[in-house]
Amino acid sequence: MSDTNRRPPSGAATLRADKTAAIAEAVLDELAEHGYGRLSMEAVAKRAGVGKSALYRRWPSKQRMVIAVVSELSVALVEEPDTGSLRGDVLAALHLVADWLTHPRFSRILPDLIAEAQRDEELFQALARCVGEPRRARAIGMLDRATERGELPRDLDRELALDLLGGLVYWRVSARGAALEPGYFERAADMALRALGARPLGA
Amino acid sequence: MSDTNRRPPSGAATLRADKTAAIAEAVLDELAEHGYGRLSMEAVAKRAGVGKSALYRRWPSKQRMVIAVVSELSVALVEEPDTGSLRGDVLAALHLVADWLTHPRFSRILPDLIAEAQRDEELFQALARCVGEPRRARAIGMLDRATERGELPRDLDRELALDLLGGLVYWRVSARGAALEPGYFERAADMALRALGARPLGA
Repeated sequence: MSDTNRRPPSGAATLRADKTAAIAEAVLDELAEHGYGRLSMEAVAKRAGVGKSALYRRWPSKQRMVIAVVSELSVALVEEPDTGSLRGDVLAALHLVADWLTHPRFSRILPDLIAEAQRDEELFQALARCVGEPRRARAIGMLDRATERGELPRDLDRELALDLLGGLVYWRVSARGAALEPGYFERAADMALRALGARPLGA
Repeated sequence: MSDTNRRPPSGAATLRADKTAAIAEAVLDELAEHGYGRLSMEAVAKRAGVGKSALYRRWPSKQRMVIAVVSELSVALVEEPDTGSLRGDVLAALHLVADWLTHPRFSRILPDLIAEAQRDEELFQALARCVGEPRRARAIGMLDRATERGELPRDLDRELALDLLGGLVYWRVSARGAALEPGYFERAADMALRALGARPLGA
């Protein structure tokens, strides 16, 4: 959070970074325990040990608050994989998706937000803009570099390729709640490379 | 529903099929509008125009009622694809997943149940047993027949293959809310066939 310097320090209007961090933690806890639909500004404020006005000084609404906190966490969790080979990058990308989906609180938060978004078009758009698109932008670079190295066909359907990398792990972990058994990532990476029509480096 | 003959017709204890159907419709409407967490037996009874006792005569709890209704709808939506070729079957399977996920009420219901299941282990198990596993059992037959015809390698990781067919469409439709543009199913089927290491028939 870089809210600290948004306003000049005139009396009570300064936004303290430690308060912002405490509020973000409280938002994640409330989302994980009760879900977006039942989350209230009152409960977040109480949990963070601040007044409700501390929340409204930072974000104008519950939706903006949740999107800001979730987007910061989600986008921070993605480092753009750049291992030098497509197989290495795909393995890293699958691990990143799995880390995100099994993150202690986030494993509950993301499926809940996907569900709420089916009923709330504005939330859907905000999630796509602030979480989905930044994450995908980082993954596109991985495909670009592999194409440059000659590992991927130039006519690859990138949208489908990214759906595959996200959906493969989501279906296993979040929809089915099934285990990631030993060797899972290697087998999933091999399947993804076949799906993408990858050629071995130098072939 | 085949509850009609479960009990002998002694006075009020007979379960009328038309009432069962009306209750099932009310359950789906309430799930789509308010979600599992906020669904109450009272609201379902009112919507169906029956008393609460009509619900409890059929199912001992909200969870059992929801699972019964959702499982009947979900499993009925899957016909086992058997077109004679793996490509035809995969295309049919992707269409079936898309029909399920874009079904007017179900597009809201499934993401909501997945979210609730992250907080409710018993619901998770019931969903897996009554919805996920029956659907997967039907899809496994498609892979078996292709293996017999020599279209798929015998050492295919079937769990991963089924994750891919479900997850590919789920990520596009439910997580991203993105469009299924013209040509989507053909391109997705081609990608899935590459992923599965499929060989053309007779090759």
